[in-house]
Amino acid sequence: MSGFAAVDVIRTKRDGGVLSDAQIDWVVDAYTRGRVADEQMSALAMAILLRGMTGAEIARWTAAMIASGERLDLSAVHRPTVDKHSTGGVGDKITLPLTPLVAACGAAVPQLSGRGLGHTGGTLDKLESIPGWRAALSNAEFTAQLRDVGAVICAAGEGLAPADRKLYALRDVTGTVEAIPLIASSIMSKKIAEGTGALVLDVKVGSGAFMKSVDDARELARTMVELGGAHGVRTVALLTDMSTPLGRTVGNAVEVTESVEVLAGGGPADVVELTLALAREMLAAAGLPDVDPADALRDGRAMDSWRAMIEAQGGDPDAPMPVANEVEVVRAETDGVVAAVDAYAIGIAAWRLGAGRARKEDPVSAAAGVVLHRRPGDLVRAGDPLYELRADDPARIPAARAEAARAVTVADRVTPAAPLVIERIG
Amino acid sequence: MSGFAAVDVIRTKRDGGVLSDAQIDWVVDAYTRGRVADEQMSALAMAILLRGMTGAEIARWTAAMIASGERLDLSAVHRPTVDKHSTGGVGDKITLPLTPLVAACGAAVPQLSGRGLGHTGGTLDKLESIPGWRAALSNAEFTAQLRDVGAVICAAGEGLAPADRKLYALRDVTGTVEAIPLIASSIMSKKIAEGTGALVLDVKVGSGAFMKSVDDARELARTMVELGGAHGVRTVALLTDMSTPLGRTVGNAVEVTESVEVLAGGGPADVVELTLALAREMLAAAGLPDVDPADALRDGRAMDSWRAMIEAQGGDPDAPMPVANEVEVVRAETDGVVAAVDAYAIGIAAWRLGAGRARKEDPVSAAAGVVLHRRPGDLVRAGDPLYELRADDPARIPAARAEAARAVTVADRVTPAAPLVIERIG
Repeated sequence: MSGFAAVDVIRTKRDGGVLSDAQIDWVVDAYTRGRVADEQMSALAMAILLRGMTGAEIARWTAAMIASGERLDLSAVHRPTVDKHSTGGVGDKITLPLTPLVAACGAAVPQLSGRGLGHTGGTLDKLESIPGWRAALSNAEFTAQLRDVGAVICAAGEGLAPADRKLYALRDVTGTVEAIPLIASSIMSKKIAEGTGALVLDVKVGSGAFMKSVDDARELARTMVELGGAHGVRTVALLTDMSTPLGRTVGNAVEVTESVEVLAGGGPADVVELTLALAREMLAAAGLPDVDPADALRDGRAMDSWRAMIEAQGGDPDAPMPVANEVEVVRAETDGVVAAVDAYAIGIAAWRLGAGRARKEDPVSAAAGVVLHRRPGDLVRAGDPLYELRADDPARIPAARAEAARAVTVADRVTPAAPLVIERIG
Repeated sequence: MSGFAAVDVIRTKRDGGVLSDAQIDWVVDAYTRGRVADEQMSALAMAILLRGMTGAEIARWTAAMIASGERLDLSAVHRPTVDKHSTGGVGDKITLPLTPLVAACGAAVPQLSGRGLGHTGGTLDKLESIPGWRAALSNAEFTAQLRDVGAVICAAGEGLAPADRKLYALRDVTGTVEAIPLIASSIMSKKIAEGTGALVLDVKVGSGAFMKSVDDARELARTMVELGGAHGVRTVALLTDMSTPLGRTVGNAVEVTESVEVLAGGGPADVVELTLALAREMLAAAGLPDVDPADALRDGRAMDSWRAMIEAQGGDPDAPMPVANEVEVVRAETDGVVAAVDAYAIGIAAWRLGAGRARKEDPVSAAAGVVLHRRPGDLVRAGDPLYELRADDPARIPAARAEAARAVTVADRVTPAAPLVIERIG
């Protein structure tokens, strides 16, 4: 009779009703076990997207997803644990410098990351451009590295929130990614299951983010902060701007190189600013409010932590990074000032160059991507390089060229940039 | 790339947009061929249910479903063809007397019918309680019987609107049956593909119908009348009451027996009234407005046509009908008048007794059902029989007993019954 019970659950939400705890527990469990079919769950997901969920429904749904798998115990780490999650943006390499930086300041950072899909890149794809580095760790390796190095960035194991893994893949092909209750429960079920004691959320807003409006981003952030609190995870969110790519690089190897510049005390101002803002929130949430992460960037401790983290997973931090076969430099046609660099269009351009994937099974190109020579507010003269398109396959350049040309606007004058950190919720 | 195009179509409807002709043609064709997955189509169906469709979208969707298969040519029949479709009700055996009656009056009736699912019965299930009768005909047998007998009730062949067959099964398990655009296009694609020249729709309203409100029924009727006209099929709709079961019998064999009573010139007044009202509409739509079907009931021509129709499909019109193993007679507890017999609850009771099926694969019991000894407005004395519950399996009685008890109300007085035919649209 499972098919009939599934139809009742779908109808309840379809007609604007509130799902009972028993309905939620049953449907999440039955879906994980294959007793509720994909076509039933996708209809339910669409009904949730269009009808919404109450806070209590979201909390129960999240608990059911956590209960579908194991919950890690990080007490053996003997340091306060704190994680960060970004809702995804263009050029968002912040996890790379941030994780070793916070570890260098005394906390332990258990970063379970994902791969890129669509116009946003994936942290694991970026790190895999480092020769030798591997993303897959066993639970024992994960806990040991967290204890010994304090910093781990790796793929989530199969045992964490399997309901979410199945549902996420389904949402991706059924147009049901953009449901705030499902986004919030997906993120929080994995983070709670991984066992972190505290969590800082970087909720992106703007053209390059999944949330295009501050109102939507705020709703998502509040929902997740509440979910974290309800499960004993101290959770804070920053709403940050994603109308412009972060930093000067969008891709895989190019973002690793830029992250290393930040760890060396340099790097683009916006990447440094956001890394430090998130590090301060993470340290405060971990009970270390008086540690200034800027010191650890300046004195080399963050870089030492990075090298230890990369080496612990088989990577060679000194190996040369992959270089693209084809580089096309695009130059300014007129004098002026860069008025806008649209994050979404640059994300699509990098994706078309091969930095991202269209399907889960696709490989990514380590060397492909976009390098911005000018950012919004920068002056240019006709003939100055504006940006580079890099690809392994020259055939990928033309489609990316059109997207990038649309992204970058040169004008007579520029409106002042919006602040990078828009709001704090927690 | 079909998965990505499917997501774009889903997103368009999800966000309240209008699907283009190309999107509709593509998604219906790709779904039929298995290139759009069930989970994608179910998400789209839910978005259509909650967002609606314009008239132009429904017309194109219907055309795409017709184009997914063959369209029959009934010109060899050499009589005007006219069909009837009911949106489904409780005790709705009207197709059984109506089809031979209209054939006896000079039109040809190509009735492609379905099986019951849920609380409404299926015409094919009812006829299969006649020993020897078979529902499956080839296209050649169908056309030959239509030419020679003028009346055919059979299962739709695999070649007609295969997109609808696949989508209907999907909607049934995903809570997306109740979408007016999908109901209208499902019905009309099959009727247009079967090749009928004219069509009369019996759109049911009330507790025992899928449409609970007159407004919804009217919208569905208008949508279907427009679709028929756009495809050259003269289409008229009657909105008829389905708050009370039709006639005195709800089941399979019991409904055949009652239909034969009508063909013999007797039967319950409401069944006779609706049969004649629909027959008159069908004859007018077929270009025979001056023929009075009441004559054919009186003089035995309708009964002759019934016998020929049943015999042409292997049935024995004189064979005794199956009898239930278990009959429970329920009697009135007080004196009074029958105030209501709720169609939905009686439908559920008959379904629980075994007359209907929970899943497509389930068998039905020919003998199971409910026989009403009293109808709304009838006087009763304490101890008089109110209704009978019939089942092959005695274990099925108790659950049906509770439903039927809820359905039948005896009171001091009764409000006048609503008219059976509520409105005509066409």
